[in-house]
Amino acid sequence: MKALEDKIRAEGKILPGPVLKVSSFLNHQMDSDFIMELGRALAERFREDGATKILTIESSGIAIAVAAGAALHVPVLFAKKHRTSNVSGMLYQTLVHSYTHGTDYTVVVEREYLKADDRVLIIDDFLANGKAVEGLLDLASQAGAKVVGAGIVIEKGFQEGGEKLRADGLRVESLAIIDSMDENGIVFRES
Amino acid sequence: MKALEDKIRAEGKILPGPVLKVSSFLNHQMDSDFIMELGRALAERFREDGATKILTIESSGIAIAVAAGAALHVPVLFAKKHRTSNVSGMLYQTLVHSYTHGTDYTVVVEREYLKADDRVLIIDDFLANGKAVEGLLDLASQAGAKVVGAGIVIEKGFQEGGEKLRADGLRVESLAIIDSMDENGIVFRES
Repeated sequence: MKALEDKIRAEGKILPGPVLKVSSFLNHQMDSDFIMELGRALAERFREDGATKILTIESSGIAIAVAAGAALHVPVLFAKKHRTSNVSGMLYQTLVHSYTHGTDYTVVVEREYLKADDRVLIIDDFLANGKAVEGLLDLASQAGAKVVGAGIVIEKGFQEGGEKLRADGLRVESLAIIDSMDENGIVFRES
Repeated sequence: MKALEDKIRAEGKILPGPVLKVSSFLNHQMDSDFIMELGRALAERFREDGATKILTIESSGIAIAVAAGAALHVPVLFAKKHRTSNVSGMLYQTLVHSYTHGTDYTVVVEREYLKADDRVLIIDDFLANGKAVEGLLDLASQAGAKVVGAGIVIEKGFQEGGEKLRADGLRVESLAIIDSMDENGIVFRES
């Protein structure tokens, strides 16, 4: 998506890691109009897939998921970070590894909002190692729901998550895929 | 807002506390179309106030804030929960008390996104004791920004937050104010 690539080039900052900091418009400060545009673009990719529910993970996936949900007129369910791994039978839970923080954390959704007849579209702001998407796939699987695909705003194509998920048969659509980023700039994958 | 009161009556569950559980449409599962409608309704209340930025707090305020931001065409900044109180000079930080969890937590915003010339509209999903809004007021104050008001989806009018904030001179607009709720049902304040 050209407008997204332009915005990343104009406002993104590359930090050691490498980490792409897009806090000016995507995941701390959020450019509301642009978030809605990104949501519509993701929705367009899955327009024909009959999703009944969007599944995302708190916190930074929420805005983009609601924008996509509004475009598809389907509800959004976000997996909540849970302070303990000791949760009730009312919940589906899974463990997600965070490379950023070097820890595992538990996320949960209430069982009543994720059902076997749901067609789930996973939405998130970033895809890097794929651990968040894997966690969401696990939650959908526990509910017996079908996953129609994953829509991502920015994929770090130089990390293994996208390749692994696609090899496993998941349809992954990313609005921008970064093949490399360093002091010389950002190289986006040709769409 | 009649549609909101109807939705609360239809889907809300009253739990001990009393806690109003609206996880079916507002803060776990989110009814995307309705969230956008709530955002437009909040935006309408502050249409003439020249807000340059919406400030909210993660996680459950994010969706409604982006919906309001899209209606006003202004960016949203969300205060992030921070794992330690030892944060850098790049951040404004404040402590928020959570009655739900019985603890204090630190929230932060990056200084570069909140400036003295900003006119801040605070948006959140719930107002009860007012601690989250007070924290956001403190962040805005540290930046020297002017706060034009607070837009809330559901105010628990039987708790002290709204009254206290209004007594302090803050304009608080709530789409639904609950005066009481118990086994006999929910009584909304007349608007």
